[in-house]
Amino acid sequence: MASLDRVRARRKPSLDPLSRLLSGELELVNQLIVQRMQSPVALIPQLAGHIVASGGKRLRPMLTLGCARLCGYNGSRHIALAAAVEFIHTATLLHDDVVDASDLRRGRDTANAVWGNKPPILVGDFLFSRSFELMVADGSLRILEILSRASSVIAEGEVLQLTTANDTRTSETAYLAVVQAKTAELFAAASRIGAVMAERPHEEEEALDCFGRNLGIAFQLVDDMLDFSAHQSELGKSVGDDFRDGKVTLPILVAFARGDEEERTFWRRTIEGLDQQPGDLDQAIRLVARRGALAETLARARTYAATAIDALSMFQDGVERRALIEAAAFATERGF
Amino acid sequence: MASLDRVRARRKPSLDPLSRLLSGELELVNQLIVQRMQSPVALIPQLAGHIVASGGKRLRPMLTLGCARLCGYNGSRHIALAAAVEFIHTATLLHDDVVDASDLRRGRDTANAVWGNKPPILVGDFLFSRSFELMVADGSLRILEILSRASSVIAEGEVLQLTTANDTRTSETAYLAVVQAKTAELFAAASRIGAVMAERPHEEEEALDCFGRNLGIAFQLVDDMLDFSAHQSELGKSVGDDFRDGKVTLPILVAFARGDEEERTFWRRTIEGLDQQPGDLDQAIRLVARRGALAETLARARTYAATAIDALSMFQDGVERRALIEAAAFATERGF
Repeated sequence: MASLDRVRARRKPSLDPLSRLLSGELELVNQLIVQRMQSPVALIPQLAGHIVASGGKRLRPMLTLGCARLCGYNGSRHIALAAAVEFIHTATLLHDDVVDASDLRRGRDTANAVWGNKPPILVGDFLFSRSFELMVADGSLRILEILSRASSVIAEGEVLQLTTANDTRTSETAYLAVVQAKTAELFAAASRIGAVMAERPHEEEEALDCFGRNLGIAFQLVDDMLDFSAHQSELGKSVGDDFRDGKVTLPILVAFARGDEEERTFWRRTIEGLDQQPGDLDQAIRLVARRGALAETLARARTYAATAIDALSMFQDGVERRALIEAAAFATERGF
Repeated sequence: MASLDRVRARRKPSLDPLSRLLSGELELVNQLIVQRMQSPVALIPQLAGHIVASGGKRLRPMLTLGCARLCGYNGSRHIALAAAVEFIHTATLLHDDVVDASDLRRGRDTANAVWGNKPPILVGDFLFSRSFELMVADGSLRILEILSRASSVIAEGEVLQLTTANDTRTSETAYLAVVQAKTAELFAAASRIGAVMAERPHEEEEALDCFGRNLGIAFQLVDDMLDFSAHQSELGKSVGDDFRDGKVTLPILVAFARGDEEERTFWRRTIEGLDQQPGDLDQAIRLVARRGALAETLARARTYAATAIDALSMFQDGVERRALIEAAAFATERGF
């Protein structure tokens, strides 16, 4: 915790040090992304460009770049592999937004809001294939293994999430299994491959997996919290999206567990029955606050972030490690 | 053409010789498919099992197995690679049926008809990832390259198909580009990898690619023809599905090109305007028949099948080659 506290005491943690450290490489990743989403079928770069250029934080490719550098990697393979990681993520977002019927992401219309459901399903498949083409061109079977496994686990997590939706009896174990699979697995894989590229010992691979995985969980918990608290303009996505979909996230699980019978009736009606009236979102926001569910979610997220930071202890201190530590601290202090 | 004529003269060509030849290996492929679609998330094997067990012809994995044997391959890698090919195909079918909002495939309810759109999108992603895991476990970067490239091309073809839908001014070139990409590319890749596994010279790879590609085109042309002619019980899918979706296929392109102004008005209303009344499908079936569009489509399909068969001429005569030749002949004589 020492490092995390130091970062906090100084100033509000930010992604800026990591972005600055990697700015040259990130620019190359962005160029490669634009280049590899080209196709003679014009709708593909149009739609892919819409989401790729929509101001995502590029957190996952930054993990690949940053972890490779932390491991002393000084080749150029990390550029294409970071692009591959971002393509997997982008394909997932396109399909997620169709599945969730989301209208807004990062403050912009989703691809399905602009083009309907059909093109994002197919362009997602295209980007996913492109991601594998990038990995195959890189030529490491070990990295292909890690990322193809991560892709399976992500899809499994998304299906699991469907089956837990609208069920207030979801256990925290089941909720965490969804978070592990749909979010943390790609964070873990994106980080781990940094050590693989640099041909570092197995312990360092494991440490980076642990760093990425715990950071991913922290990141998702905060995401779930912000659904009940962010100002819409900051978050980009609509506040209350998860609530309206009946997604059972940690804030709801905590509020439900701590709530009285009247509150539980409210959650059952709105989340299980999806019977939502005007004012219900405001009421949900009041209830999660009253029961301390947001503070509890944030506290847990900070624990995961601290575990992530501790996992970096085996690496030498330096600008790379400090920037990755601050990125983990940022994950729980962010308002967007 | 000599071989094709011989097969035709004898009896109605069938897939049976190829199925019989490969029955032991196909059984292993089926076992591996069932094993690799398992997941602790119960909905995944349920949904995947629904489509995998729904009586597909397993044509693509049979091409991989058959071409490997034609090339004298006698190892066991072709089992997993045939399963990988079938997973790519299955993932595509799941997504296609969502995109097309199809209710029926192979005479059974589609996955989206049973579970809605969300699970098939995500289970398709899962099977697609599983397919890459199988290829990675095989370990050939060359085969990974061929199949990841094929996957990109398929997705490109599906998007291209969306952009040509509802447009009677689609050129035959554009139509064939869709068929090449969405169907023939996987047939070509599935066949080509047989030679790669067996470490045969580049000419044989190319010959098998040519065989699979032309067979794939023939297969798709017949599919498009059957949409206007098959008995529903034989075809499995609903007759008129493509028509109702406003898909511009070769029978329509030919009927439109040869039709008078009244007929073109009919096609514009039903295909471009998607303004379809009861009786319109019957009228469409009459018009494609009157203009010889089905016979023309079949004649073209037979030309592609003949090209496919000619591509096998560099291989030694034997049970494998004869069974593959008959499979190509079957593609244009089938009623389902």
